[in-house]
Amino acid sequence: MGSSFGKIFRLTTWGESHGPALGVVIEGVPAGIKIEVGDIQAELARRRVGQSKVTTPRDEKDAAEILSGVFEGRTTGAPVSIITYNKDADSSKYDNLRDVFRPGHADFTYWAKYGHRDHRGGGRSSARETWGRVAAGVFARKILASVGAEVYGYAREIGGIEMQTFDRDEIERNIVRCPDPVAAAAMVDAILAAKEEFDSLGGVVEVRGVNVPPGLGEPTFDRLDALIAQAMMSIPATKGVEIGEGFATARSRGSLNNDAFYAENGRVRTVTNSAGGTLGGISSGEEIVVRVAIKPTSSVAREQQTVDVNLEPRTILVEGRHDPSVVPRAVPVVEAMLAIVLADLLLQNRAARI
Amino acid sequence: MGSSFGKIFRLTTWGESHGPALGVVIEGVPAGIKIEVGDIQAELARRRVGQSKVTTPRDEKDAAEILSGVFEGRTTGAPVSIITYNKDADSSKYDNLRDVFRPGHADFTYWAKYGHRDHRGGGRSSARETWGRVAAGVFARKILASVGAEVYGYAREIGGIEMQTFDRDEIERNIVRCPDPVAAAAMVDAILAAKEEFDSLGGVVEVRGVNVPPGLGEPTFDRLDALIAQAMMSIPATKGVEIGEGFATARSRGSLNNDAFYAENGRVRTVTNSAGGTLGGISSGEEIVVRVAIKPTSSVAREQQTVDVNLEPRTILVEGRHDPSVVPRAVPVVEAMLAIVLADLLLQNRAARI
Amino acid sequence: MGSSFGKIFRLTTWGESHGPALGVVIEGVPAGIKIEVGDIQAELARRRVGQSKVTTPRDEKDAAEILSGVFEGRTTGAPVSIITYNKDADSSKYDNLRDVFRPGHADFTYWAKYGHRDHRGGGRSSARETWGRVAAGVFARKILASVGAEVYGYAREIGGIEMQTFDRDEIERNIVRCPDPVAAAAMVDAILAAKEEFDSLGGVVEVRGVNVPPGLGEPTFDRLDALIAQAMMSIPATKGVEIGEGFATARSRGSLNNDAFYAENGRVRTVTNSAGGTLGGISSGEEIVVRVAIKPTSSVAREQQTVDVNLEPRTILVEGRHDPSVVPRAVPVVEAMLAIVLADLLLQNRAARI
Amino acid sequence: MGSSFGKIFRLTTWGESHGPALGVVIEGVPAGIKIEVGDIQAELARRRVGQSKVTTPRDEKDAAEILSGVFEGRTTGAPVSIITYNKDADSSKYDNLRDVFRPGHADFTYWAKYGHRDHRGGGRSSARETWGRVAAGVFARKILASVGAEVYGYAREIGGIEMQTFDRDEIERNIVRCPDPVAAAAMVDAILAAKEEFDSLGGVVEVRGVNVPPGLGEPTFDRLDALIAQAMMSIPATKGVEIGEGFATARSRGSLNNDAFYAENGRVRTVTNSAGGTLGGISSGEEIVVRVAIKPTSSVAREQQTVDVNLEPRTILVEGRHDPSVVPRAVPVVEAMLAIVLADLLLQNRAARI
Repeated sequence: MGSSFGKIFRLTTWGESHGPALGVVIEGVPAGIKIEVGDIQAELARRRVGQSKVTTPRDEKDAAEILSGVFEGRTTGAPVSIITYNKDADSSKYDNLRDVFRPGHADFTYWAKYGHRDHRGGGRSSARETWGRVAAGVFARKILASVGAEVYGYAREIGGIEMQTFDRDEIERNIVRCPDPVAAAAMVDAILAAKEEFDSLGGVVEVRGVNVPPGLGEPTFDRLDALIAQAMMSIPATKGVEIGEGFATARSRGSLNNDAFYAENGRVRTVTNSAGGTLGGISSGEEIVVRVAIKPTSSVAREQQTVDVNLEPRTILVEGRHDPSVVPRAVPVVEAMLAIVLADLLLQNRAARI
Repeated sequence: MGSSFGKIFRLTTWGESHGPALGVVIEGVPAGIKIEVGDIQAELARRRVGQSKVTTPRDEKDAAEILSGVFEGRTTGAPVSIITYNKDADSSKYDNLRDVFRPGHADFTYWAKYGHRDHRGGGRSSARETWGRVAAGVFARKILASVGAEVYGYAREIGGIEMQTFDRDEIERNIVRCPDPVAAAAMVDAILAAKEEFDSLGGVVEVRGVNVPPGLGEPTFDRLDALIAQAMMSIPATKGVEIGEGFATARSRGSLNNDAFYAENGRVRTVTNSAGGTLGGISSGEEIVVRVAIKPTSSVAREQQTVDVNLEPRTILVEGRHDPSVVPRAVPVVEAMLAIVLADLLLQNRAARI
Repeated sequence: MGSSFGKIFRLTTWGESHGPALGVVIEGVPAGIKIEVGDIQAELARRRVGQSKVTTPRDEKDAAEILSGVFEGRTTGAPVSIITYNKDADSSKYDNLRDVFRPGHADFTYWAKYGHRDHRGGGRSSARETWGRVAAGVFARKILASVGAEVYGYAREIGGIEMQTFDRDEIERNIVRCPDPVAAAAMVDAILAAKEEFDSLGGVVEVRGVNVPPGLGEPTFDRLDALIAQAMMSIPATKGVEIGEGFATARSRGSLNNDAFYAENGRVRTVTNSAGGTLGGISSGEEIVVRVAIKPTSSVAREQQTVDVNLEPRTILVEGRHDPSVVPRAVPVVEAMLAIVLADLLLQNRAARI
Repeated sequence: MGSSFGKIFRLTTWGESHGPALGVVIEGVPAGIKIEVGDIQAELARRRVGQSKVTTPRDEKDAAEILSGVFEGRTTGAPVSIITYNKDADSSKYDNLRDVFRPGHADFTYWAKYGHRDHRGGGRSSARETWGRVAAGVFARKILASVGAEVYGYAREIGGIEMQTFDRDEIERNIVRCPDPVAAAAMVDAILAAKEEFDSLGGVVEVRGVNVPPGLGEPTFDRLDALIAQAMMSIPATKGVEIGEGFATARSRGSLNNDAFYAENGRVRTVTNSAGGTLGGISSGEEIVVRVAIKPTSSVAREQQTVDVNLEPRTILVEGRHDPSVVPRAVPVVEAMLAIVLADLLLQNRAARI
């Protein structure tokens, strides 16, 4: 259970890191959306490994095939199935991890839950699963585009280095996806230094929803905030999520934190946006602003203390090539999840009034 | 849509702040749980208004009636319906808010979404809705107790004052529910000072799951982390959630952040608990540690700038008596939501293996 | 689990036959529907006991209260909660049934499933649960009315007597709700005769959806046919359901059974309607025609052989006053369920195209 | 929407008749089930085209690949993805059907719903979709086998010829899957005669659940009867479903229809089984007996009257090779759906008691 997300626009991902293939099935994609496989491939390229010196040099072709739900370049309303085949990955390097639990990974908890697990590369718990989310996100983005809305994200902070300036155009110009080129350069240095020290860095991804119409979000448990939180915290390596001023509001006062309303061009607007675009769990029309805490990669090329399935102490050295920081590659995943939440709520909202 | 939460243990809350009644229906409560209405009433007393000088002096009787699903003191497996009638609240003070949007509240967004709204006391968006969550939480706690698990929470921080010591026994001894009596006294002072300044304070609630068995959580989207995040961010006034070290992991390193495994008494344990009791979205058996950011109460007794439904500028003064900080009363709600998530996952986990 | 139905328009019923109250919570009711409690009461009167000499003379007031989701005469989009209190029913006559299983009833199976059960009047398995369905159906009918569609039903057959003529206006003129007044009179006689023989009769309810727009139904598992079948077979005492020519198609030929298409007034129509208004699980715009088999009431005032919870043989005589045939009172329930299915699919269909 | 079925054991099918591939993703398969692809292939062979002279001579290889959720011969708890590639089917014969609606098919209703459709071989509405159900059914059968339960089905009636004797061993010995060899021979003759007349025949599939434990089924809407009805009526070409005595109970009397209880070997049994193994929507432990009405194949090689997308009258002759009766091939699909319903309810039932 638990591999599906969404009520109308509903995706189900499947596949293991070293299994034959991975994929996603998306139900509830409205008919009539123009799509081609290149749209998906372009987005997948942003989360690919090996795209720069700050990502793992592994090579995954990630070629997407659309197997259903699209006919003559447009969606039909039928479930959309998208698949990618894993190339013949060398799983032998995981042989020595078959019975041992890597710290920071899901090895132990999957074993505790299921008794039986695919230990190769994390199996189902691998972040490779997010491939399908990014593919599904392309459809979600197109649904949002139909009302003029879009999402975009960036690395706000890596290894304690926070951006100080903001230029949206800068984001895709640097390999860490930071809107501040100076901070970006420092982030790159920090990542490469951590890599040399056989260590890894965490960071914060910020994502925004722009031109999102007011009214999205379903009280009470499917508040926009709640679904965003679920979506973000379902991404591997995330440990926190906040919206608008987030944890800073805990130290603020009502008189400062409330966003005053005014009218502009026939629309209700707020002077400030402490709330991050959502009031009472429903979008206000202001920018949706979300930050996601990403932990440092658990796979570090150092000796670590652990135990095996027989509860015997073991010392392990996790081999393989891993991202010294997953933040840059997490950006398109975080974006995809925000797009998916918003697209689903946009479709749900069509039933809000008689 | 969106008023239900959970897959097996599934609650649906209903009711408006100033409607005739509020309630909750809980499906999937296993048969055979011993319960009496007093168990529920005791827990509801912890979220009641008027319980101390730091909460609103409003008076709500909050008397719970169990209308179904319990027979001769035990649950039957049928849906449990619990109700409370609103006393004849004076709604007239809201008359002047019928067409105007209070800053920080859901007035505008509900109007944008539905066109038609119950403006009295926030209607459906009122935090009064959480009554049903606390009532449902009592059943969830009993499910957890059947495996020896429990949840408890406290105010970790209010108005920028953070607890410095921890004594679980202190929590219910002070009116802000802080485990540090010194910090508690300072928090009380801060709240009363804010009240005199017609202002309000936010804070951080921390909640823990103790003796939670390993294996709870359903990959991929129903990770324990993801469901906790949804649950917490569905509570009114929440703006952020983090698990374990949370946002601090963004500034950490893999070598520090990984929790090493060891064996103790035939169980797999971790030396540290940066992860907050969850790995790969599944409980590890260590304490589950969650923090929730609570914004300062939006209702402050000051003049605020806003607009009305005709987009005309308006100055309003929100009357009525409100909590200068909802943090102390949020504690039992946050606890209830964690208990609900864990109870549902515990029941789901019964199907994990053949 | 299992007390909820629908994806967008989603009802959850709760309550036991002899508990304090019964009710229904409906999520996903679009905002802006004009409703008053009298609309609901009028429909509930059609399923009430004691309405005629062919129904049980028990008296249930069935007074409905709307507790949420409606404000100033219109729905708000919030969950609608409707409740009725059971009057002080005399449960003492069920005391001797506490440990014994009535043939044809759910006593044994609930005991087998839950171990613990409310034995009074069938508890949760009582047909009294359908009260909430009829109440919810009123909202569904209003959603259908917004596109000009409606549902109506009638007794097609009781005790082997089948209607031979059809006049819709006759349906509510006779106490068995048969569109053929001659057959109706015979049905009444048959029911009264069965009653005198301490026996009971089954029958067939037919229900039609009129002016239902084409396009309703979600392939693959949520076909219109499939959801109708689930809805109907979830009503107590139903044992079969068929659509259009139903079981007769099993003896037909493709050349006869196919409905030829033609165009009329800019619409695609079919010359015949063997299919009963659905093709490939999606409404065609032709009348939806459904028949439901209702078994004879299980409670008959005769001695019956059974066993008790200790597996000891017992002879029981089920006391209490019961409908000698539930078919007339099943008509509004069957109608309600068809309306609910169609309303939900109508709302879902709003998301069918971009 | 609507391509998923089940709450815990939940399958999602995808794919079109003439698309590149079809498949199924199954969530909620418990870990630890032994499975190999041959188990699936064997069952798929029973629904294959071209298996005998009464089925269409088309050739579909139907080779199944398991792409996820199984590791070293056992399920892992992760979603199971199974796929089959369509061989290069010749879709050109459907070119003349691009804009015209075949009577009895979903062409018109899909067009009405989605505006845009894959017209080749019925696209999503093709019975080829049931491939994935049969594949998923293999896992469901293994779950049932873990408690000693099984399902099996047969052709009870084809073209008005009904079986008169019952020998389970006969079922797979004849090409129509009828337990009565004499009736089977007559059915074969009738099908071949219909084929020569360019016509088609319907029939009735009966399916049984054996050794199903008591207690399966979730009141109120997820009654065993209701889910069976939904499952069966979601299969293409079905027009009716009945359980136990079904429509015959409508003509029976309570005194005859009730099944008396007795005790045998420490179990509660019923003397008769009019109810077909379910009471109050919950399995009783008696055999579950379900009958499904299958309409005659809509594709008949005769000229038929219809209209096109411009509402112009058209005469069409549906080419291609089709089953003159789908009943024999429907048997494994009906079985699979019963197995799926029961397996899901078996897993759900694990949460019935504390």
